[in-house]
Amino acid sequence: MVNLSRWRNSSFGLVLGGIAHAFDPGHPLTMALPSTPCLVLDVDALRRNVARMAEFAKDRGLRLRPHAKTHKSREVAALQAQAGAVGICCATLYEAEQLAGAAPSILLTSPIAGPQAIARVAALVERGVDLAVVADHPAFLSALATALPAEGRLSVLVDIDPGMGRTGVASPADAVALARAITAHASLRFGGIQYYCGGEQHIPALAARRAAIGMRNIRLAGTISALTSAGLQPAVVTGGGTGTHGIDADAGLLTELQAGSYVFMDQDYGACELGGAGPFELALTVHATVVSANQAGWVTIDAGIKAIATDSGRPAVMRGAPTDSVYGFTGDEFGRLDLPAQGAPLAVGTRIVMAASHCDPTANLHGIYHLMKDNAAAGIWLAEARGYGPTP
Amino acid sequence: MVNLSRWRNSSFGLVLGGIAHAFDPGHPLTMALPSTPCLVLDVDALRRNVARMAEFAKDRGLRLRPHAKTHKSREVAALQAQAGAVGICCATLYEAEQLAGAAPSILLTSPIAGPQAIARVAALVERGVDLAVVADHPAFLSALATALPAEGRLSVLVDIDPGMGRTGVASPADAVALARAITAHASLRFGGIQYYCGGEQHIPALAARRAAIGMRNIRLAGTISALTSAGLQPAVVTGGGTGTHGIDADAGLLTELQAGSYVFMDQDYGACELGGAGPFELALTVHATVVSANQAGWVTIDAGIKAIATDSGRPAVMRGAPTDSVYGFTGDEFGRLDLPAQGAPLAVGTRIVMAASHCDPTANLHGIYHLMKDNAAAGIWLAEARGYGPTP
Repeated sequence: MVNLSRWRNSSFGLVLGGIAHAFDPGHPLTMALPSTPCLVLDVDALRRNVARMAEFAKDRGLRLRPHAKTHKSREVAALQAQAGAVGICCATLYEAEQLAGAAPSILLTSPIAGPQAIARVAALVERGVDLAVVADHPAFLSALATALPAEGRLSVLVDIDPGMGRTGVASPADAVALARAITAHASLRFGGIQYYCGGEQHIPALAARRAAIGMRNIRLAGTISALTSAGLQPAVVTGGGTGTHGIDADAGLLTELQAGSYVFMDQDYGACELGGAGPFELALTVHATVVSANQAGWVTIDAGIKAIATDSGRPAVMRGAPTDSVYGFTGDEFGRLDLPAQGAPLAVGTRIVMAASHCDPTANLHGIYHLMKDNAAAGIWLAEARGYGPTP
Repeated sequence: MVNLSRWRNSSFGLVLGGIAHAFDPGHPLTMALPSTPCLVLDVDALRRNVARMAEFAKDRGLRLRPHAKTHKSREVAALQAQAGAVGICCATLYEAEQLAGAAPSILLTSPIAGPQAIARVAALVERGVDLAVVADHPAFLSALATALPAEGRLSVLVDIDPGMGRTGVASPADAVALARAITAHASLRFGGIQYYCGGEQHIPALAARRAAIGMRNIRLAGTISALTSAGLQPAVVTGGGTGTHGIDADAGLLTELQAGSYVFMDQDYGACELGGAGPFELALTVHATVVSANQAGWVTIDAGIKAIATDSGRPAVMRGAPTDSVYGFTGDEFGRLDLPAQGAPLAVGTRIVMAASHCDPTANLHGIYHLMKDNAAAGIWLAEARGYGPTP
């Protein structure tokens, strides 16, 4: 909870709260703020977050390959690359298609399956995109190798299941077998391994997170050892996230760091001690407006399940209403703010600033970042890779 | 549950299951299906749903003004208008801006507040859009009246709270006072009342839904009576939804019906007896692919919280896996399918067809409808109004 209080006292929030709290149609700064509901991105905070993680990775000898599923934006990817990222991770083919060229290279972190996906990978290689993919099954290797352009050589990493049972091969022996199967195709290259501990990212206490990663890393070390013994030493060991990046650096097994959420931050990560390069600043907020105030004790705002992701709980109120107001989802375009018993009533038109509980899917809902710089509106950036797009 | 079994045996699903179940890269129909995850829209089923509700409204003497927040698509809005809808409802200004012209007129069903929203309403009127708005508070009437072009005359409906405490005035006396306040502005016109019983739409049993609406309608009748006594008889009484449209028609208090979800349907409405023009067909499905199958008992598919809305529970499996498989959200781009104990394992590459639990926010995640007609791919439609867009 420490970080949330810090965020609530940031200069961005204070000034914004000052100018935007009351409805004042004649005030130029109020009018300059974007129409609600909207995502507001504090560009200076974002840049500091980007720089902080880049410096950390450099200091610790890690290659940084931030996950672009968080922002889906060419502008943010380019900032990350300028700060030293070796490339980006993408979770979907549409992200790779839309963000290609914004960073030097792309690792597609989700296993691909099916003829359409293979055709899209081949088309990216044909375009000259420096792409790597992951596999956890030999089923598509032949189809993939056949689909690639004749001169192509695609890097395929073996995805290792850290024990969460989502994707990845289940044992060191399976990893060795799959790496061998990759090398059997002339157009494919064994690029290393991916080991992403998704469940551990959100363990609240840093010490418990460290202990959990320690347990997971026994399997990772064993897999690296088995591959090395088989003459298949992985050139790249990629994984990690915002929640474990410091722990991962200490463990020394990863060569590439996939952290993504640190650019924006959210309530979920903000409530944790992160260690490593943390704490990061809250750069992304959701702005909403009180659109109905006819009840004693609560108001309705214009941000509901289509403006704020529902998967990780309630957003936190940062500005415009008492910070102990409690948000509840009440519809596609409506949320309810229950106000503390002792507080003053809130007028229709009041602007509310919130931190989403989960930044990635919240950003995905909007697709447009309204930029704030030096406490003034500063244009928009698009999330070009939002959604899935037409099949090319 | 009756309707879900019916859907699972539809010809669309059977043929699709037949061609798409197994991974067969050489099969032309398999390749013609869109890349996953994606929304697939059965255009023939959609047209039948549109016609069915339009005929129902005509037979019962109701004007149909379907809620476009469900689809956010100019193509679907135009089909609804061609079938006899008097116009559409929009929940956001961006929907109104993007869908203007696709149907004869628009009712913005969310109260507006703040200078940006007022400027956007004025700009729509300036564009010549036949627009009506709702209000539940006098705060913005003066600002709205001032912002409108000189020759404009905007219809403002009084939003009545049916007792859910989300938006709307709380009492008949407040409704009369607000209607009077509207008529005090030369550029505004009192257009009637909105009475939307959101909570009642999803009461599972039809009889219980009917009883609940009966209770709500006491307040509606009292409000109409108070307005009429004050010389402000509402020309339009708008409300209702897919869950209550038959009950609303029987009650005879509404003049306009706002139902929206009937065009697509979803698991939530599909599990209920709807009465009225129902049952409707499942026209919208989410297609996904098995991308990992290294576990005994479950597989991972490429549809997670960015492909399927999480607010109303799990999607239902219709095709490609046993229909008693259980879906769980496991990440931005991943879901887990737990397979029944007695079933065969599911291969990587298997295509899975699911019914979303809640169609509106699921459609909003994608923004593109992949059309199926006569069991073949038939192009795409866009959801032009997805998200919130840049402030104009």
